[in-house]
Amino acid sequence: MSAAKLIGVGVGPGDPELMTLKALRALGEADVIAHFAKAGHAGHARTIAAQHLRAGIIELPLFYPLTTELPKCSDDYRDAIGKFYDGAAAAIAAHLDAGRTVAVICEGDPLFYGSYMHLHARLASRFSTDIVAGVTGMSGCWSAAGMPIAQGDDIFTVLPATLPEAELARRLAEADAAVVMKVGRHLPKLRRALDRSGRLARAIYVERGTMADAITIPLAAKPDDDAPYFAVVLVPGWEGRP
Amino acid sequence: MSAAKLIGVGVGPGDPELMTLKALRALGEADVIAHFAKAGHAGHARTIAAQHLRAGIIELPLFYPLTTELPKCSDDYRDAIGKFYDGAAAAIAAHLDAGRTVAVICEGDPLFYGSYMHLHARLASRFSTDIVAGVTGMSGCWSAAGMPIAQGDDIFTVLPATLPEAELARRLAEADAAVVMKVGRHLPKLRRALDRSGRLARAIYVERGTMADAITIPLAAKPDDDAPYFAVVLVPGWEGRP
Repeated sequence: MSAAKLIGVGVGPGDPELMTLKALRALGEADVIAHFAKAGHAGHARTIAAQHLRAGIIELPLFYPLTTELPKCSDDYRDAIGKFYDGAAAAIAAHLDAGRTVAVICEGDPLFYGSYMHLHARLASRFSTDIVAGVTGMSGCWSAAGMPIAQGDDIFTVLPATLPEAELARRLAEADAAVVMKVGRHLPKLRRALDRSGRLARAIYVERGTMADAITIPLAAKPDDDAPYFAVVLVPGWEGRP
Repeated sequence: MSAAKLIGVGVGPGDPELMTLKALRALGEADVIAHFAKAGHAGHARTIAAQHLRAGIIELPLFYPLTTELPKCSDDYRDAIGKFYDGAAAAIAAHLDAGRTVAVICEGDPLFYGSYMHLHARLASRFSTDIVAGVTGMSGCWSAAGMPIAQGDDIFTVLPATLPEAELARRLAEADAAVVMKVGRHLPKLRRALDRSGRLARAIYVERGTMADAITIPLAAKPDDDAPYFAVVLVPGWEGRP
């Protein structure tokens, strides 16, 4: 039995200081670090962890395929992305079969909307695995904004901005606190849904939440509807505070 | 202008290794550490951070009042707990007024269902504040269980088990992924709600999620309905995985 292990390592939302001691130990013990990235770019997780990679560690970058021309609901997209994860899992399995410990570094938390999950699903039945929980991107955003998000019996919901307007409005009205992800070109629709649900006045728009150049403003005060894909909108709960 | 600062410091879900580098730095720089605890007990956050407290640091334990005999919706309860937070905020303000930096250490993440929020709401308008985001208890639970929780456009919801059964069932049916908190004596009702919503087979029961003696089992396989207040039930999403 080899000591090889697959470790999903959360490195937090962006600030390298929000890495955990356990993540640092995992990076120190791993033989190989793998990380997802767009072709031609350093991955965000790689950038966050950079100063903690030891000399001589084997790096395995996993470059996403170029699928921007394919609709996400199409069979072609699912086929391309499925094959990519199959190939990435096979590359990692080769290292594990050779007795090496592989740390897959992940922005945020590995099992919360993270690409690592696709590798875990393919490899966890064959290899020993460990997960190092990380600070999520959304925690990084509300912490940078100094904005309490949920308390007591609040119902808290994470919603993708891709939902239809009426569905977004209904779910925003039914939650005490919400985080809306993947805002991008959906911002005008999201703004209308927040207005319909009576939550627009509480909504905070956050761009590059945990970076030095973060933008955090009340959505009602944002003069335009320009937003990158990774912008989020926070709707704090805790309205009946004692 | 004094350099005094109030810092809400997340120390993560229980494993001291899940503290961040930023939390360690905050503990090293603070003059005073404050922490919530039940009367006669060391607080959980204090236990997690114990090995990183420097000699000579001023400790300010904040002991919750004994309110177990009061219904949580009663005016008497709200009055007692409100006065407690007022007093705690005043004790911290006295240190801040004396130019000391006060770190309030918090299990999990300070602004996500944390008691620190009550201090922040009372003090943030008068003093400089900073928040150190932490790994949440729920991240600790699904990581310890090795269970991917949400992916892609999944709708993720946090629900208190205190909700009425029909409401729980409806919300569980409408979410792709869920975490149900404060399970305790509500477990029989929660079990019925999960069954009604078709989610019982996917539900995982977790007790002391990030401790060495954690219990993690499919809820359907749990033979009894005994559960402590802080037990959680995880319902993973990501059913259409590519």
